[in-house]
Amino acid sequence: MSGNTFGTLFTVTTAGESHGPALVAIVDGCPPGLPLEAADLQRDLDRRRPGSSRHTTQRREADEVRILSGVFEGMTTGTPIALLIENTDQRSKDYSKIKDQFRPAHADYTYHHKYGRRDYRGGGRSSARETAMRVAAGAIAKRLLARHGVQVRGYMSRLGPIELPFVAWEGVDDNPFFCADPSKLDQLDAYMEQLRRDQDSIGAEITVVAEGVPPGLGEPVFDRLDADLAHALMGINAVKGVEIGAGFASVAQRGSEHRDELTPEGFLSNNAGGVLGGISSGQPIVARLALKPTSSITTPGRSIDVRGQAVEVITKGRHDPCVGIRATPIAEAMMALTLVDHWLRHRAQNADVHVDTPVLGQR
Amino acid sequence: MSGNTFGTLFTVTTAGESHGPALVAIVDGCPPGLPLEAADLQRDLDRRRPGSSRHTTQRREADEVRILSGVFEGMTTGTPIALLIENTDQRSKDYSKIKDQFRPAHADYTYHHKYGRRDYRGGGRSSARETAMRVAAGAIAKRLLARHGVQVRGYMSRLGPIELPFVAWEGVDDNPFFCADPSKLDQLDAYMEQLRRDQDSIGAEITVVAEGVPPGLGEPVFDRLDADLAHALMGINAVKGVEIGAGFASVAQRGSEHRDELTPEGFLSNNAGGVLGGISSGQPIVARLALKPTSSITTPGRSIDVRGQAVEVITKGRHDPCVGIRATPIAEAMMALTLVDHWLRHRAQNADVHVDTPVLGQR
Amino acid sequence: MSGNTFGTLFTVTTAGESHGPALVAIVDGCPPGLPLEAADLQRDLDRRRPGSSRHTTQRREADEVRILSGVFEGMTTGTPIALLIENTDQRSKDYSKIKDQFRPAHADYTYHHKYGRRDYRGGGRSSARETAMRVAAGAIAKRLLARHGVQVRGYMSRLGPIELPFVAWEGVDDNPFFCADPSKLDQLDAYMEQLRRDQDSIGAEITVVAEGVPPGLGEPVFDRLDADLAHALMGINAVKGVEIGAGFASVAQRGSEHRDELTPEGFLSNNAGGVLGGISSGQPIVARLALKPTSSITTPGRSIDVRGQAVEVITKGRHDPCVGIRATPIAEAMMALTLVDHWLRHRAQNADVHVDTPVLGQR
Amino acid sequence: MSGNTFGTLFTVTTAGESHGPALVAIVDGCPPGLPLEAADLQRDLDRRRPGSSRHTTQRREADEVRILSGVFEGMTTGTPIALLIENTDQRSKDYSKIKDQFRPAHADYTYHHKYGRRDYRGGGRSSARETAMRVAAGAIAKRLLARHGVQVRGYMSRLGPIELPFVAWEGVDDNPFFCADPSKLDQLDAYMEQLRRDQDSIGAEITVVAEGVPPGLGEPVFDRLDADLAHALMGINAVKGVEIGAGFASVAQRGSEHRDELTPEGFLSNNAGGVLGGISSGQPIVARLALKPTSSITTPGRSIDVRGQAVEVITKGRHDPCVGIRATPIAEAMMALTLVDHWLRHRAQNADVHVDTPVLGQR
Repeated sequence: MSGNTFGTLFTVTTAGESHGPALVAIVDGCPPGLPLEAADLQRDLDRRRPGSSRHTTQRREADEVRILSGVFEGMTTGTPIALLIENTDQRSKDYSKIKDQFRPAHADYTYHHKYGRRDYRGGGRSSARETAMRVAAGAIAKRLLARHGVQVRGYMSRLGPIELPFVAWEGVDDNPFFCADPSKLDQLDAYMEQLRRDQDSIGAEITVVAEGVPPGLGEPVFDRLDADLAHALMGINAVKGVEIGAGFASVAQRGSEHRDELTPEGFLSNNAGGVLGGISSGQPIVARLALKPTSSITTPGRSIDVRGQAVEVITKGRHDPCVGIRATPIAEAMMALTLVDHWLRHRAQNADVHVDTPVLGQR
Repeated sequence: MSGNTFGTLFTVTTAGESHGPALVAIVDGCPPGLPLEAADLQRDLDRRRPGSSRHTTQRREADEVRILSGVFEGMTTGTPIALLIENTDQRSKDYSKIKDQFRPAHADYTYHHKYGRRDYRGGGRSSARETAMRVAAGAIAKRLLARHGVQVRGYMSRLGPIELPFVAWEGVDDNPFFCADPSKLDQLDAYMEQLRRDQDSIGAEITVVAEGVPPGLGEPVFDRLDADLAHALMGINAVKGVEIGAGFASVAQRGSEHRDELTPEGFLSNNAGGVLGGISSGQPIVARLALKPTSSITTPGRSIDVRGQAVEVITKGRHDPCVGIRATPIAEAMMALTLVDHWLRHRAQNADVHVDTPVLGQR
Repeated sequence: MSGNTFGTLFTVTTAGESHGPALVAIVDGCPPGLPLEAADLQRDLDRRRPGSSRHTTQRREADEVRILSGVFEGMTTGTPIALLIENTDQRSKDYSKIKDQFRPAHADYTYHHKYGRRDYRGGGRSSARETAMRVAAGAIAKRLLARHGVQVRGYMSRLGPIELPFVAWEGVDDNPFFCADPSKLDQLDAYMEQLRRDQDSIGAEITVVAEGVPPGLGEPVFDRLDADLAHALMGINAVKGVEIGAGFASVAQRGSEHRDELTPEGFLSNNAGGVLGGISSGQPIVARLALKPTSSITTPGRSIDVRGQAVEVITKGRHDPCVGIRATPIAEAMMALTLVDHWLRHRAQNADVHVDTPVLGQR
Repeated sequence: MSGNTFGTLFTVTTAGESHGPALVAIVDGCPPGLPLEAADLQRDLDRRRPGSSRHTTQRREADEVRILSGVFEGMTTGTPIALLIENTDQRSKDYSKIKDQFRPAHADYTYHHKYGRRDYRGGGRSSARETAMRVAAGAIAKRLLARHGVQVRGYMSRLGPIELPFVAWEGVDDNPFFCADPSKLDQLDAYMEQLRRDQDSIGAEITVVAEGVPPGLGEPVFDRLDADLAHALMGINAVKGVEIGAGFASVAQRGSEHRDELTPEGFLSNNAGGVLGGISSGQPIVARLALKPTSSITTPGRSIDVRGQAVEVITKGRHDPCVGIRATPIAEAMMALTLVDHWLRHRAQNADVHVDTPVLGQR
């Protein structure tokens, strides 16, 4: 399969460049009978939208999505759902300088070597603008999951040096950081102000959680649920690491500490992050992803041009000083898409399976 | 696609249970003209083989692989390569106890809920025994890569509390830990001895590195090289986390620190781990994976049986006290398979691309 | 994969209903550096366009295609190409009658059972209107093939009782039937006139030929070139049969007659239709497809409604009396898409293969 | 995907050459809980087995299949099922002559150009021997279908000039031709005798029928059920044509004649062959395939060698004078595999769909 399609049965194919006329997606495999209208997608798009806070890029996009097919009389029909978002704020500017240079830590150099040419305006296809369509498609997946009692939510669990422990879901959507601890908001604001003055950027960590996932999702030995989640989350722009449950902390754990014991009242812990042997256990699925600092900063950096000559690069334009700030809805979308795809794969093979064993929650 | 096939163009499909008659793999899409004999696969199989040190399971398997097709007169023909490893040491024992119980942190509970039934002897399909075939198939991938100047190697970079910095590739294969720092071997031996006395197990971290990878591999926006590596590595038994380059450390980095500047003499650092925008940059590709401690320990643990009743479980049998010890060849195999698959995907689309821009190494 | 994506490496994903706002396609995997503009696609769209002759439906669609991504400065960039065609002539009418009835030989009954609901306006997704996007995507494939010396062309080889032998490619595009024998045009016109008076419809046979295809395309044992052509062509609306080369005539042939002998000057015949063992031989690839008569006729027919009650159905609206008449560009498109996909698959695995054996043409 | 895997959810991957040590298959995606043992596969293998009549090749293969995984305590477990058939009668002979020549109408020439090398012993991978594994895998599919009331059967409907109309299923398996009209057996015997004396071969037509298929299978717009059947059947060695229902006869039909009217008592005809709009209608699915005459005949033929020089070729060895004779079980297998795959795909997306509309049979 080509690289712009995600999923096996519930597939999302996207297209579109940062400064092209529009972003497009086709969502195929959605079960029929799901109530759906554009407004359902708009909510998540608005959460990801640029320009909604002073800590994000000042590019102003309405990100207004239209549904062009696959929905009839307010319901999905089972045929492919085409989505369209027109780009409205792609400022025309002079790209003559950037055109032949490779910005450090950008995809410029690798796209150039891979394809021989690229749409350099605003990063073209490598721009995070592409993720708008993931969020729109993910919103469909979330609605499907919600009908089956599954809820996917995320929050920022760390911004640079600032740890952001989980306090409560309430309020996460009320601050631009998707921070789950209201007491940290001032500190975050102050940190971002200083960063701006330093003309620098910073990394972040996002945690995504799916609750209500039934046991059984995941297709060993290669397409384990955690493996496919890793693929989905590592495939988001700027992500450099993914972990499930205890993650890297499990390296220093002993078996007697790591293992999640089972009791009739539920599991006693969740170091597994809801996945055992590559299959969902019925516990909450917990994933964390590490996002690197934005590479577009105005501090000059060394680089080369297409002829291999040394140049100094300053990345101007409208950029997020922390890509992690808008990443929470994207991570949620990718987790939701992965879960829906695996839900369909699981029931394709195992729709007839019945066991009497009770499903455990977490005690 | 079903879950037991890995890859898109260079595909590996595996089958086989821990205590069944044999393990089987079919490798499809291998280019013709590659010199290949069973001995080429045996080398890596021997590196992974159980029973080769006192720190691993005492199950004794010859792991002797046969090539049943796809090779003629010592060369691959381009047709599928079938591999067979017969299981020889699957001790018959009494499974009546384990049969209806779920061992904590094992796949027992999730396989039961997913499929309604399972081959419980030795873990069946969920056993790490399955990874023998990954190593055999990976050896074919390694040989292909070697012909194009790419070398994939790994080492253990941490065992529980003991950090194991990289010192030199020489000697990595001469110790049972795949440790790249000979000065640490005594400490590792002592730690494992204590662990055995404690009847416990421990986690580990493996680092895998691919050198000589040309720029251009990776298929954005979803099948980025790092995303597919994450899928490959997170899909190994017991892996709970994957990171590329600076990984989770990039959360606390500033953009001015993280970005790898380019000079005509090469990149000045490799925080990207060799992947920019999801595409290989020509720098070494560096991935780390976290393995949880083995769940099969003889310390009693709480669990339930298939009727939901509380039971106490002791996992007897022959088990690795640290699955990470034998994981290095597996991780290498999965990285090699990912790279070969992406090499074929890249040249399918871009075989005609030519740029004059020099390829940078690392300074 | 979901059913609305065609191809493995060069993929086309389509969406859109007959009376919805638009048709959409995303073409992924196109090599970079191909000169491309909307006008290149428009030519073939105009050949398929409804309302262009009195023998086709009178629905008037401009079928004006826009390229929304993947092309920059007149060249493909290797990123996905999104295409959009807005529907302009979807007349609003009263569907209350058709809504709960199944028109005989239509997809109404099967869509109803499969999805439980459907967009019944103009056939919704099952309408042949969907094929406009195949033609647009196929035009990209044709351009790629043309650069490598491959030409895909088709003609109508039979309309109902009238055999239409191949005379010359010149003139095929100058008549509404894609007839390759100008002497038959009057007979065709008269036949269609009579058919209209009879309020009936008729089947047709199309022949598609690809010249200049190099030997080697096709992936045995399942994805043979002829197998994938059969999939591509049988997947066109109304097609009931596909044959390659001698096709069904080979049932009555003896081996000594069927086999295409080889001489240094070329093959002596082409009963194979350019495919041997599932792989292109270098000879012209010849496929024929049988199209059934349109089921939308105004002669009343027996049917049932959603409650299983008997009803009499008359299909009004604007319909083609012979769907075969506009099928030639669609068949060409599907053959071109199949060939491009196989060309990429072949070079992925076999780009390094070199043999000195000369390539034979046809003597 | 690579070319040796068939299916999307219920996948069959095969490997093995005519004169290699063994044939191998991995069947993945089979639902758990299906009673299965080797004897279930053996029945169909015996129907296809060479040497079972004087009208087929005299090669003697036991074709004894072993199940190496995926079955436990007599039931499938949902994990991949590995199958092994060892080759026992691959006579060693002198291949020096055939090695550098291309037999007319064989895959020699195309494999040589595609891969640059080939296992020329007995045709290697291009030999029809490969189809033994299709039959074994297809037997699993048939068993699954049988549990859901679906029966797939085939018969020879034409041998060269002799039409073989369907009379009754009884007796089809009792004659070497799979002829459904016992009155024709003497004529067939005599024809084959004469053919042997003429040192020639002949084509054949097979008809395959699936009864009991529920409405709803098929994934428009590209993976229609008929399109995937065409892919499956055209992918069998020697097949040059596939038709569904009225097939090529529908070219000369009028709409009023072709359309299958519906009544509360059932469909009034089955020109559609059980597929409407690419989706099963609940009527019997009827497909016909045309097989070319064997190309291995002892009558000398003109050809070239690898240097392009003219040679005369006589194909000795043990060959079927009519490949169609053993093709019926293969065609059944491919239809069964296609139906199972689509049954899983359909229920993945549409398991929740319910309509009250009655399912029609055929009146």
